[in-house]
Amino acid sequence: MNRRMVFYTLGQLTVLEGALMLLPLGTALLYRERTVSSFLCAIGIAFLAGGLLMALFRPKNRIIYAKEGFIITALSWIVLSAVGALPFFISGEIPSYIDAFFETVSGFTTTGASILTNVESLSHGILFWRSFTHWIGGMGILVLMMAILPASGANSGRSIHIMRAEMPGPVVGKLVPRLRDTAKILYLIYIALTTLLILVLFVAGMPLFDSVVNAFATAGTGGFCIRADSIAGYAPHLQWILAVGMLAFGVNFNLYYLILIRNLRGALRSAELWCYLAICAVSAGIITLNLMPSYGSISHAFRDASVQVASIMTTTGYVSVDFDLWPQLSKAVLFLLMFVGGCAGSTAGGLKVSRVMLLLRYAKQSLMRMLHPRSVRAVHMDGKKVDEATVESISPYLILYFCVLICTFFLLCFDAFDFETNITAAVTCFNNVGPGFAAVGPTQSFAAYSAFSKLVLSATMLLGRLEIIPLLITFSPSTWTKK
Amino acid sequence: MNRRMVFYTLGQLTVLEGALMLLPLGTALLYRERTVSSFLCAIGIAFLAGGLLMALFRPKNRIIYAKEGFIITALSWIVLSAVGALPFFISGEIPSYIDAFFETVSGFTTTGASILTNVESLSHGILFWRSFTHWIGGMGILVLMMAILPASGANSGRSIHIMRAEMPGPVVGKLVPRLRDTAKILYLIYIALTTLLILVLFVAGMPLFDSVVNAFATAGTGGFCIRADSIAGYAPHLQWILAVGMLAFGVNFNLYYLILIRNLRGALRSAELWCYLAICAVSAGIITLNLMPSYGSISHAFRDASVQVASIMTTTGYVSVDFDLWPQLSKAVLFLLMFVGGCAGSTAGGLKVSRVMLLLRYAKQSLMRMLHPRSVRAVHMDGKKVDEATVESISPYLILYFCVLICTFFLLCFDAFDFETNITAAVTCFNNVGPGFAAVGPTQSFAAYSAFSKLVLSATMLLGRLEIIPLLITFSPSTWTKK
Repeated sequence: MNRRMVFYTLGQLTVLEGALMLLPLGTALLYRERTVSSFLCAIGIAFLAGGLLMALFRPKNRIIYAKEGFIITALSWIVLSAVGALPFFISGEIPSYIDAFFETVSGFTTTGASILTNVESLSHGILFWRSFTHWIGGMGILVLMMAILPASGANSGRSIHIMRAEMPGPVVGKLVPRLRDTAKILYLIYIALTTLLILVLFVAGMPLFDSVVNAFATAGTGGFCIRADSIAGYAPHLQWILAVGMLAFGVNFNLYYLILIRNLRGALRSAELWCYLAICAVSAGIITLNLMPSYGSISHAFRDASVQVASIMTTTGYVSVDFDLWPQLSKAVLFLLMFVGGCAGSTAGGLKVSRVMLLLRYAKQSLMRMLHPRSVRAVHMDGKKVDEATVESISPYLILYFCVLICTFFLLCFDAFDFETNITAAVTCFNNVGPGFAAVGPTQSFAAYSAFSKLVLSATMLLGRLEIIPLLITFSPSTWTKK
Repeated sequence: MNRRMVFYTLGQLTVLEGALMLLPLGTALLYRERTVSSFLCAIGIAFLAGGLLMALFRPKNRIIYAKEGFIITALSWIVLSAVGALPFFISGEIPSYIDAFFETVSGFTTTGASILTNVESLSHGILFWRSFTHWIGGMGILVLMMAILPASGANSGRSIHIMRAEMPGPVVGKLVPRLRDTAKILYLIYIALTTLLILVLFVAGMPLFDSVVNAFATAGTGGFCIRADSIAGYAPHLQWILAVGMLAFGVNFNLYYLILIRNLRGALRSAELWCYLAICAVSAGIITLNLMPSYGSISHAFRDASVQVASIMTTTGYVSVDFDLWPQLSKAVLFLLMFVGGCAGSTAGGLKVSRVMLLLRYAKQSLMRMLHPRSVRAVHMDGKKVDEATVESISPYLILYFCVLICTFFLLCFDAFDFETNITAAVTCFNNVGPGFAAVGPTQSFAAYSAFSKLVLSATMLLGRLEIIPLLITFSPSTWTKK
């Protein structure tokens, strides 16, 4: 294994994170807040530690294989969170380091689960950094590094392995022959769409700071908000804009690229897109009907239903209404949406729509084959045959997925919370959604969980964001022993 | 498709069920109960309807294929339950037919979930029939039919397809070359073990009637009891006997056959057996430790933990203590055990230990192959390579398994129960366990669910007992259209 390359990349990443902290530092300066020194201190640590790693582990060769790709990705996300927690901790705005770590993991993994009970007391710089982690984590910091570093750096070798490990979904392909250009295109689309959202929100009447941080949280499908009531206090038309924004960032970014190169027909042929929109529409419809008796007004019921469906399905986790008080049927719809998640290649979490589609098609094909053993077995998607390796990797993923969920649920039961709280805490964190039901419901926080449970949930969020396998490989003993 | 053979077999089965009702009829006669006429009436209907089907659909050829095997099994179990509900309904002891149907399905599928709120008011004949359904359903009525009918009947052709469809677990093999002999051996072991259990319980001090019905419920891993407090009122040593009994019937019957032919070493080599016992031991250990602070006495905590673990893991569902009041960790252990279930080829439900083992090994192999693409991939069990068709059928089963669970949960949410109730009701019925938590907890019943939900749960219990695929194939429209 190319250990030098692993640690060298970690160093690069830490320096990059330090550089990204200049933005919240600027915010703190702008608002003349006392957190300026905290950011300076955190940036200093990041530069120092990153530089040291880069100096100590200058690699002799830069070639990496699948294994190194997984390891770099897994360790990067852990280091990223450990360093990213520093401003919260040093400033004292989150006094416990474990709490700060949880909050940062929740940020980078775009979960949006919070341990804060009084978010409005935080300074602007800290709030900016908190929401900015969503934006960084959404598309992936390693993809960002690929886009901005010169091709002779981490981009040489075979960094497609890193991209595969960091990008969610069953299939990750290049948009253009050169990987660095793919990463650049993805980030340019990401920046453009985020900027557009900031502008639309601002023009529609949201204060500028709110527009920026909400756009970050929406773009990353994260869900951190700067108000105690999440987005419930914003005007209805702003909630609609955010809902459309969430849905837009839950779409596979490849489709935006297709639109960009004027292949609209290609983009509209995506079965995943239509399935995603259909699930949203049907879910919003069911919930609207279910809410009608208690709401009276259909427009109000439809708005709450749509915003919450967009929020949960895209795994953002914004709260526009206390859905824990909704009837069981509506809660069941939201609970199931947490598992589905957004499209592959988007910033959303969950199983991903295309993976769910592939799973169902695979099950159907296998069933057909039981009856007709000699029939040809192939799973199709968008009119093309899905290659066998992809199909075969999906079932093991499902098994691992449930193993992680079960372990998380089990470990949470050491705390004294009820069944509903523990189950939904595990589900919402693993799928990077944010709020659950009952004691981790939309108006509650994760503050009351023990430090042990917070670490368990942090691990679960990382496992969810990186789709298990990178972390599993990194922490299996056989990876680190020489054969 | 050989439709004549399908309906002819259904006729045979109905007649057989009528014959089996002679036993509860005898009980009713013995206790001079007024339900004698109800049983006579039900038996009359069964003989008439069964005879009519046999006369109308005398088959021209008796060969059946996999498809007919699935269809015969699925329809048989529905007819079995519909006819089996008659004594409850006709006697008026369960006034609603849907309730009677639910109770009968719960009996035959060896679930043990009940809609009865006052079980002690039932007559002996009805109680006998209720527990006897567990015994019939445990090993399977079609297997029984194979064992007793002459080889020229349903046994000719390829009735291995029926056996495969009715027997639970990922692999069903013949013990001896002739299928009829396999069925006979299985039933002889079943009868011998049940008789042994009756004797042991009776000698240990349980009243005779209690011994008989409890042995039926234990042998089928069903869980219906004739007391309002389930088995909590029996003396501790009787609870221990029942626990050992449940564990014994949760073991693959092939192992008893191996012991019978004096191949003890072969029986002890079963990896599934050791895994099953290990899971039981570890679970009982965790729960004992978890209960200690509130119990004080370690022997009491250990007994309650062990009896409940045996009861839930084997999917029997006897209740010796209100485990809904236990701490969350203990409840979590029980909840997870509901999914695992007993060994394949036993009377227990759930996913089955060997299937869980195969799933985990398959996931591990696939993970290894991601890192070493050229490595050989084979899943081993008991030192032998598991054939690829078996391994490949397990993942689609898992997908279907969760689809059924999700659908059941969703449909139950039309009722006004809470999250914990609905989730555990779906899980406990689908895995054929019996009690859940909260409003379907150990001291509660399913009486309060709507008729719609009871039908949904009945379907779920059948899907669980027959492992989905037979019912899915029977009710897919493409099965009944000619190509």
